[in-house]
Amino acid sequence: MTDKLTDFSRLAIHTMTNKPWNLEQAIDGYCRAGVPGITVWREAIEPYGVKEAARMLKASGLKVVSLCRSGFFVATGAMDREQARTENRRAIDEAAEIGAPHVVLVCGANPGVDLPMARQQILDGIHAIEPHARAAGVKLAIEPLHPMYADTRSAVNTLEQANNLVTALDSPFIGVCVDVYHCWWDPFFRAEIQRAGKTMLAFHVSDWRVPTRDLLNDRGMMGEGCINLREIRSWVEKNGFHGMIEVEIFSNQYWEWDQDRLVERIKRAWLAEV
Amino acid sequence: MTDKLTDFSRLAIHTMTNKPWNLEQAIDGYCRAGVPGITVWREAIEPYGVKEAARMLKASGLKVVSLCRSGFFVATGAMDREQARTENRRAIDEAAEIGAPHVVLVCGANPGVDLPMARQQILDGIHAIEPHARAAGVKLAIEPLHPMYADTRSAVNTLEQANNLVTALDSPFIGVCVDVYHCWWDPFFRAEIQRAGKTMLAFHVSDWRVPTRDLLNDRGMMGEGCINLREIRSWVEKNGFHGMIEVEIFSNQYWEWDQDRLVERIKRAWLAEV
Repeated sequence: MTDKLTDFSRLAIHTMTNKPWNLEQAIDGYCRAGVPGITVWREAIEPYGVKEAARMLKASGLKVVSLCRSGFFVATGAMDREQARTENRRAIDEAAEIGAPHVVLVCGANPGVDLPMARQQILDGIHAIEPHARAAGVKLAIEPLHPMYADTRSAVNTLEQANNLVTALDSPFIGVCVDVYHCWWDPFFRAEIQRAGKTMLAFHVSDWRVPTRDLLNDRGMMGEGCINLREIRSWVEKNGFHGMIEVEIFSNQYWEWDQDRLVERIKRAWLAEV
Repeated sequence: MTDKLTDFSRLAIHTMTNKPWNLEQAIDGYCRAGVPGITVWREAIEPYGVKEAARMLKASGLKVVSLCRSGFFVATGAMDREQARTENRRAIDEAAEIGAPHVVLVCGANPGVDLPMARQQILDGIHAIEPHARAAGVKLAIEPLHPMYADTRSAVNTLEQANNLVTALDSPFIGVCVDVYHCWWDPFFRAEIQRAGKTMLAFHVSDWRVPTRDLLNDRGMMGEGCINLREIRSWVEKNGFHGMIEVEIFSNQYWEWDQDRLVERIKRAWLAEV
């Protein structure tokens, strides 16, 4: 088994984890706590505009790990699908501006589009925006989402599917994002991490609470649930991933906390559980 | 696409769908409504004892489609695993007594047992009870459960895994139970239905509500959600399954209804949506 982490050099936190904070507060909070990495959600950029957000991030010295999130390629109408592509190109530009090496793609799903069609629309959508990503020097990280989100969030529900898209699209600007929350249950999780190899661009951690009280906003702190985090980290590291590890926790419970205290809680869990 | 169903000859309802009813009320309710099939949950038998329940079911003329549910093979201690096997043998005897051709296996999961180990315990557990099933002339229907239940209910989360167990265990008394609620999202669902072939013993229907408000008790009425039911029925029928189709809906909402009205609602959805 992989050793515990002994410092915070690979720790990054998603702004959505500290949802009550605006971008300025998140930047200050992470700097104060000695958290070196930040993954920026587009919602956090919006009130400032991308130029100002980029300036703030640069001045902070924080490492921008990812821009979250774009994608959502699936729609019943061609107009809406075209609009989604436009929005994705905008997200790519934002990532370039704030210095994020990749954009995370939550690929989309729509109860009015059956899953085989949705999956085709996703392939077509990523194919359509790839030249823009390439021109901007920004990679696209396809994130499989838990099957319980196959109705409205993503028709890509296993790492195998994400890897299949990477294989089909065959671009150095397309890879996968591995989130333990979405994939921990999958009997092929380990095998597909190996298959992803160097196309693995991002690694998200949290935990699966027992019981889980809400489908969306009840993710657990690392160590609080049943995901074998240390072992999964050993798989991704054996496979050559030594990048930042991103803490992404959507939790009604933790959003009620004092957010400085939450960051300290994350740091303790980081050393003990990741 | 398969034609609509024009009569109720293949309709069966799970007693748990009408949870507010006791077994006597369920039997009366289904007979009154012209529902020919019943899948009996062990909870519904318990207040009567199996002999009395068997007598009531026989007298009713209803077709007993399945006994739900046994399994739960996963535990941290060997004693508990042995107890689970004993309980499974008891369930097999109950199925024989009430005339159910098979027992549905919800295979079990335990946050204290990692998933590869859990899956091994499931294989071992089914292997251990198979001789009892064979002697009783009762089949075992392995039901894959949605990945959101991988923490405490089942480490068998795809039809592929269930089919792999059937292949490994290689007994005419072991097959699979296909529930659209658990499997609809799976990109290999259709392929694995084909692979199951004649080992497919049971077919459960309901729908995936958008949004789903509760992980356990918010299943939708057929047609109320995003599952392409008619198409899935066409897959199982092309593949040779023409048995009873079981309506299994756990729903806090529908359990508040007058249960006769709920049965009528099911019959309307049956004709329009299944």
